[in-house]
Amino acid sequence: LQKLGKADETKDTVFEESVANFNKQMVEGTKLQRDLRAYLAAVKTMHDASKRLQDCLADMYEPDWFGKEEVDAIAEETDILWSDYHDKLVDNSMVSMDTYLAQFPDVKARIAKRDRKLTDFDSARHHFASLQKGKKPDQAKIAKPMSIVEKAAPGWAQGILSAHQIAQTNLTRNQAEEELGRAQKVFEEINIELQDELPQLWNSRVGFYVNTFQSMAGYQERFHKDMGKLNQDLNDVMTKLEEQRLANEAA
Amino acid sequence: LQKLGKADETKDTVFEESVANFNKQMVEGTKLQRDLRAYLAAVKTMHDASKRLQDCLADMYEPDWFGKEEVDAIAEETDILWSDYHDKLVDNSMVSMDTYLAQFPDVKARIAKRDRKLTDFDSARHHFASLQKGKKPDQAKIAKPMSIVEKAAPGWAQGILSAHQIAQTNLTRNQAEEELGRAQKVFEEINIELQDELPQLWNSRVGFYVNTFQSMAGYQERFHKDMGKLNQDLNDVMTKLEEQRLANEAA
Repeated sequence: LQKLGKADETKDTVFEESVANFNKQMVEGTKLQRDLRAYLAAVKTMHDASKRLQDCLADMYEPDWFGKEEVDAIAEETDILWSDYHDKLVDNSMVSMDTYLAQFPDVKARIAKRDRKLTDFDSARHHFASLQKGKKPDQAKIAKPMSIVEKAAPGWAQGILSAHQIAQTNLTRNQAEEELGRAQKVFEEINIELQDELPQLWNSRVGFYVNTFQSMAGYQERFHKDMGKLNQDLNDVMTKLEEQRLANEAA
Repeated sequence: LQKLGKADETKDTVFEESVANFNKQMVEGTKLQRDLRAYLAAVKTMHDASKRLQDCLADMYEPDWFGKEEVDAIAEETDILWSDYHDKLVDNSMVSMDTYLAQFPDVKARIAKRDRKLTDFDSARHHFASLQKGKKPDQAKIAKPMSIVEKAAPGWAQGILSAHQIAQTNLTRNQAEEELGRAQKVFEEINIELQDELPQLWNSRVGFYVNTFQSMAGYQERFHKDMGKLNQDLNDVMTKLEEQRLANEAA
């Protein structure tokens, strides 16, 4: 048992590190999800504000000004670009974020269950160990309900009760041994599972961060490229409108 | 006066159109200012949200992962790009917007003043015209305070009072003519000013809209170009991090 206890201790240090990593990973993931949600809300705000500003220009733009149709088209395309960007973030980044985070509550519950099973196992082990050593306090504890019977019983019955007590102690020791075996089996099952899963989950974070930020960077790159093009178009229309205005003034 | 009245009427139609344009221009400008302010607030929101998301990545990014320094640099440059974009909009678009709109309250007050001066002019003209025609109701009105004196005066004084009354009427007519001249001068001065200024202000809107949206499109084009580049850099770092991760897994 001393050897088993030592082995357990060694395993626990590694396991505790895994749990610390798990908690760090969950905190990071939760923060990333919150920041991503806030970013999505900001994209929505910016989309609305940009749309209102574009519509404002389109409304002021008089039909006889150069490029009326282009300005309307640019406003519409800008609106579509913002919608696409927002939807891509929701449909991909947000959904994969939710899937990733959905693993954590179950693992967290199983870590708590392993802790309870370890307590059960330790308690069964100590109980059995104390029965093996024939410790007085435990014997007294087990004999306690009998002593009332002993006191009440007549003298000739004392020997029978003593034999019964020895049989009872053996039965208790067998039960405790069985209990210890069961508790060990239950604990080791969940322990092996988590010893396997936690490092895997921990390692998976790198790939998840890469995917999340790489797809976001990809959408953004595309979005900024297209948006830059539309701004260039608007710039060109404005230049031509200015030329038209100067020509009108000269006429 | 009939001729002058007709000329005024013709002038007023043109002027009323100018005032309608002025009001349209002020409503458009005020809406543009409001939409631009909302857009600026949205840029601030988006800047904050983007910064939090970039900082989140930088905080999670472990020192031994590929491109730690690049990720920190990208986060810093993204922050600077957003700040620059916001500041450019405030320092240029917003300031020129405020300067443009600052003209309107003064012009609006002068349009209201012209309206009051036109009412004064019309009232002076009608007053003088009624004195010229020797209209009974107006005569009776002027004589009214005298009639109390007449009733109180003895018989021999009646002739003196009558002569006084004629002299008084001539004086009133001269005063009314002077008043008409003054009212006309005051009105025409402000009227000519506004007849000159309102179409100029109205025409200036095209150049202002061109400047506003052309500079905005210019800042945005630059911003989107630089931002697209940073996203491309982030994309590259993520690709290399993924390669590092796969190499570590294989090892």
